[in-house]
Amino acid sequence: MTDNSQQFASDNYSGICPEAWAAMAKANQGHERAYGDDQWTERASAYFRKLFETDCEVFFAFNGTAANSLALASLCQSYHSVICSETAHVETDECGAPEFFSNGSKLLTAPSVNGKLTPESIREVAIKRQDIHYPKPRVVTLTQATEVGTVYRPDELKAISATCKELGLNLHMDGARFTNACSFLGCSPAELTWKAGVDVLCFGGTKNGMAVGEAILFFNRELAEDFDYRCKQAGQLASKMRFLSAPWVGILEDCAWMRHGNHANHCAQLLASLVSDLPGVELMFPVEANGVFLQMPEPAIEALRGRGWRFYTFIGSGGARFMCSWDTEEARVRELAADIRAIVAG
Amino acid sequence: MTDNSQQFASDNYSGICPEAWAAMAKANQGHERAYGDDQWTERASAYFRKLFETDCEVFFAFNGTAANSLALASLCQSYHSVICSETAHVETDECGAPEFFSNGSKLLTAPSVNGKLTPESIREVAIKRQDIHYPKPRVVTLTQATEVGTVYRPDELKAISATCKELGLNLHMDGARFTNACSFLGCSPAELTWKAGVDVLCFGGTKNGMAVGEAILFFNRELAEDFDYRCKQAGQLASKMRFLSAPWVGILEDCAWMRHGNHANHCAQLLASLVSDLPGVELMFPVEANGVFLQMPEPAIEALRGRGWRFYTFIGSGGARFMCSWDTEEARVRELAADIRAIVAG
Amino acid sequence: MTDNSQQFASDNYSGICPEAWAAMAKANQGHERAYGDDQWTERASAYFRKLFETDCEVFFAFNGTAANSLALASLCQSYHSVICSETAHVETDECGAPEFFSNGSKLLTAPSVNGKLTPESIREVAIKRQDIHYPKPRVVTLTQATEVGTVYRPDELKAISATCKELGLNLHMDGARFTNACSFLGCSPAELTWKAGVDVLCFGGTKNGMAVGEAILFFNRELAEDFDYRCKQAGQLASKMRFLSAPWVGILEDCAWMRHGNHANHCAQLLASLVSDLPGVELMFPVEANGVFLQMPEPAIEALRGRGWRFYTFIGSGGARFMCSWDTEEARVRELAADIRAIVAG
Amino acid sequence: MTDNSQQFASDNYSGICPEAWAAMAKANQGHERAYGDDQWTERASAYFRKLFETDCEVFFAFNGTAANSLALASLCQSYHSVICSETAHVETDECGAPEFFSNGSKLLTAPSVNGKLTPESIREVAIKRQDIHYPKPRVVTLTQATEVGTVYRPDELKAISATCKELGLNLHMDGARFTNACSFLGCSPAELTWKAGVDVLCFGGTKNGMAVGEAILFFNRELAEDFDYRCKQAGQLASKMRFLSAPWVGILEDCAWMRHGNHANHCAQLLASLVSDLPGVELMFPVEANGVFLQMPEPAIEALRGRGWRFYTFIGSGGARFMCSWDTEEARVRELAADIRAIVAG
Repeated sequence: MTDNSQQFASDNYSGICPEAWAAMAKANQGHERAYGDDQWTERASAYFRKLFETDCEVFFAFNGTAANSLALASLCQSYHSVICSETAHVETDECGAPEFFSNGSKLLTAPSVNGKLTPESIREVAIKRQDIHYPKPRVVTLTQATEVGTVYRPDELKAISATCKELGLNLHMDGARFTNACSFLGCSPAELTWKAGVDVLCFGGTKNGMAVGEAILFFNRELAEDFDYRCKQAGQLASKMRFLSAPWVGILEDCAWMRHGNHANHCAQLLASLVSDLPGVELMFPVEANGVFLQMPEPAIEALRGRGWRFYTFIGSGGARFMCSWDTEEARVRELAADIRAIVAG
Repeated sequence: MTDNSQQFASDNYSGICPEAWAAMAKANQGHERAYGDDQWTERASAYFRKLFETDCEVFFAFNGTAANSLALASLCQSYHSVICSETAHVETDECGAPEFFSNGSKLLTAPSVNGKLTPESIREVAIKRQDIHYPKPRVVTLTQATEVGTVYRPDELKAISATCKELGLNLHMDGARFTNACSFLGCSPAELTWKAGVDVLCFGGTKNGMAVGEAILFFNRELAEDFDYRCKQAGQLASKMRFLSAPWVGILEDCAWMRHGNHANHCAQLLASLVSDLPGVELMFPVEANGVFLQMPEPAIEALRGRGWRFYTFIGSGGARFMCSWDTEEARVRELAADIRAIVAG
Repeated sequence: MTDNSQQFASDNYSGICPEAWAAMAKANQGHERAYGDDQWTERASAYFRKLFETDCEVFFAFNGTAANSLALASLCQSYHSVICSETAHVETDECGAPEFFSNGSKLLTAPSVNGKLTPESIREVAIKRQDIHYPKPRVVTLTQATEVGTVYRPDELKAISATCKELGLNLHMDGARFTNACSFLGCSPAELTWKAGVDVLCFGGTKNGMAVGEAILFFNRELAEDFDYRCKQAGQLASKMRFLSAPWVGILEDCAWMRHGNHANHCAQLLASLVSDLPGVELMFPVEANGVFLQMPEPAIEALRGRGWRFYTFIGSGGARFMCSWDTEEARVRELAADIRAIVAG
Repeated sequence: MTDNSQQFASDNYSGICPEAWAAMAKANQGHERAYGDDQWTERASAYFRKLFETDCEVFFAFNGTAANSLALASLCQSYHSVICSETAHVETDECGAPEFFSNGSKLLTAPSVNGKLTPESIREVAIKRQDIHYPKPRVVTLTQATEVGTVYRPDELKAISATCKELGLNLHMDGARFTNACSFLGCSPAELTWKAGVDVLCFGGTKNGMAVGEAILFFNRELAEDFDYRCKQAGQLASKMRFLSAPWVGILEDCAWMRHGNHANHCAQLLASLVSDLPGVELMFPVEANGVFLQMPEPAIEALRGRGWRFYTFIGSGGARFMCSWDTEEARVRELAADIRAIVAG
């Protein structure tokens, strides 16, 4: 096992996919205007509008931390609050970025079922306090696919957005793995976003085979007012923007994004199918996207690490996360499954 | 003239240089740990330490807006202030980014000579006010090469840093075009930074032939405490960090950075030499780096634009800026010069 | 019951105590230098140093929201985090103020026992995560007396501060009701603060009989560097500072603060003693300071409100809070107790 | 000359006026609801609406730093900018408070004539830059009376607000000395604010004879959305609010505010008339409000200080500022004038 063998720790261990690479190479011809005033950015934006079947506002940021934080900051003021799942990435893994970008908006965590918010959990948090000493809820953010590999169905999204509308809350979707959700459901991007009441989507490019870059799509265009200034001030305006936008052209123009999503999801299903019958190994969540969460005995986890595998675990819980990528090789999945099997049998 | 003909509007109109591209291609093999825990980031950091002949702390950010703003924020608190030249990029072209990242640190502009701060101008601003109603100066930031294409000499830097030391000010260098300064002076990076008393350098990668990315070097290592957390929170930690660091390996390992700097500077000198004898055309500043600033009659400027040339002008001043890049072709410089000559003669 | 009858909703329903009022009247003679450069501010600071038996740094802010938030902000950076009890006022009732003043420091809530943090709960939160995606803990804040009317003993504080020291955490005390804690324990202010390892205390004046104003005491003087600038920038520097500091002279010079604390605590004990034997009424927490928390049947709570009493309740929990003040009349306490008794008997 | 003799350094050297004091004494009866839900706050708000002849939104903050900064923050986002005079208090004496409260909004200074902005100076700054690298102007703030003691006439205000409207800018008025402006012009508060196109006024209480407290009046009510939350989060919500609002009742109910303003203005005129004929002494600005700005030889300034007088000077300029207050005694003015006369003659 060499240093850059495929691992399952994160789908961002993978590199740049061929389609993104090719587009970057094409974009790397001659001079282009800077700061997004170039043909590639225009083309990428057009592809997004076509793909989502709507005239949305499109922006590009360097990474998901910034994309989500900027989007949330645009949906509320510092004295407002953001409702999210207790397992939401913005709450657990962003080092306070949403609070930083918004200058203090508090995240209010709501209980989730299989990583998913429900209208009830949102409502409960939203109406718990109405006094001035508590930051007024103004936004709901949900992650699609979720941090535990599950996927919101269109009717779940619609129920949530109806609750949001009723309560005066904007709805934001963290789509770091939006592709995997589309793939699992076979739904169109439109069905999973604006048609279901989502105001803003952060569509992840990095986990989709890009080097850097996320797209921020405002379906509610009014919310995008001066968002370009917001990006600039926050250090998220690329001077050579074409290298953030061209890869999107590459993966959108011939549906590579969907092929990659299908492939990653398929690998996750394969892994799950190869180990789910093992005694002492249990799926912690339904496998719907590109992640497999296994409950395993601690010694098994240790033994697996001992064989050189990298993956995330949850402290003291015996849970292990395995993420598949656009480039995951089936052989490598089988290798991992075989090792798990051997260890558990051991 | 096609759409992506070479222009002189900005050195960020250029693309990715071959050395950076090749390194990205190499880095795009297999899986790598995310968030900078990879071999490329380690190698790039080692190259920086070798190049600067010191054990500095090295960080990577996506762009110069963020790199400079984060560095400044780490050198002061929100109620402190930052002294900069009235022409400093952080003051004139960052849409309030330094104020945003620092949560309110005010920039105090000092008069400059040929775009350069002097010990006297710094001192005057630093001691003007000592009361609590004015933000306490804590940092000086200078740009090397400056926004008007001039370059600080080592003894100018030393005089400034001595003043800083005396007044309790940290010294930050915005090195978006640091390469061009090294090239012009034939000085080592160490001579122009820590040996001259600079605490932190933001070394620009984008204008050096990279797609995205700046390096932040803390020579005063204490000032770097928890800077990695600062980057993360501010949306400047790349998950696939290798694609920010590998290009540095590419341009540092065989001195491509210096060749590119030499070339861009050479083109600027060429342009200057071809037009400086023209009646009605005057150099606004000495040409020391990769920019040529020409005072020209407004009609000439208009006519030049009419021939398809893109460049920045200064409102109402008759000044035009022409920037050369790592990839500028001499033929294109001669074409531009010929057009200027023709127009002025016209 | 007239509009301004005594109530038990909050100890800030009370007015200005005679000693504070008299000091304000004295301070209201002629002209004084502004912004704290006056004799009253000097005298108040001296009283604090004498009372706390140490040469601490003393600052004044308008209210507790600001005092605590500014103090916390001075103890960490935006990418750090603050550990507090899940019931801490800074978490539950400040509308995101700590996050605002610090530009994003996240509050991490730890389980508490009777409203009190423990070394174990602090440690658990502090070491749960060590990675860069989680804000690094740097401060512990505790409330003395707590939000549920309990009081940390000196050895509890010492155990907590030992844990803090070990883990590299600063220790902040929210002392909105610090007086009541001193009164209950019969301890000196020094014993409950710096002698027990507290770095910074926010000593509440408002609940102590002042119109506005809190004092911020840095026992660790290094942490106070430029704190005056911080206050100024954050809108917490009073121009006519004497009216914030003179009341402190008034209540400190003849121990009025302690008399008031004793009185409020006594009233709480009285109330508790008058109702604790009632069937269906239970003390939720030991009564140690000036608050009494009663578990009562919802209909009883409703009936009590029906008789014109104002008090806070906890949604859906059947809990009611009754706070006593420096000016609470015993007769009014007995009136309240009688009404509770009558209703419960009802 | 004792320590608290009347001085002319600042109008905040004065104390609490009798009317404000009496109202505080009245308010200090029994218990009142906290956080502004009390009868005094309601009455003060009603007085403001009556005085300004419009149904404006009224808020109270502790001081002018906060009031102005919060108001400005509510009128723009962090990536917007605020146009102000180069002599504006928000620019020169707030230690970066506007930038802090807004999380980075840049102040753009415009040249002023006698301390006053003009439509032309505003326009020039507002349209200078239209690109994304420069924070988009969204607010104009002017100070009435200005920092140099001059006063905007209604038609000057109307011309400015017309320009604001045309350019999409909100108009904020820093009214620390609004009373003095009304007094000088004999205009109604309405004429100098909303009837002239002002969106928000910060009406200073401190310089008007209060201990602490400013009122923030939104004539454009939409701009006040959730402003109460903003105040709370920023540490500007007083728990015992009645002591911020009652003094306003005291000075508004029988026009004390105007009497005080008249008196202070009268003293300034007196001072000016007593010294303006002196050789070597010149009025720097027309005396329209309560300040007198004298150009005097440096030795004269030194000599005046030597006689125990306190006043502000402008570094290296030979300028001295003398401010009169609600409580300034004519005898003291004559004393000062006599000393100036003696020194100059000397």
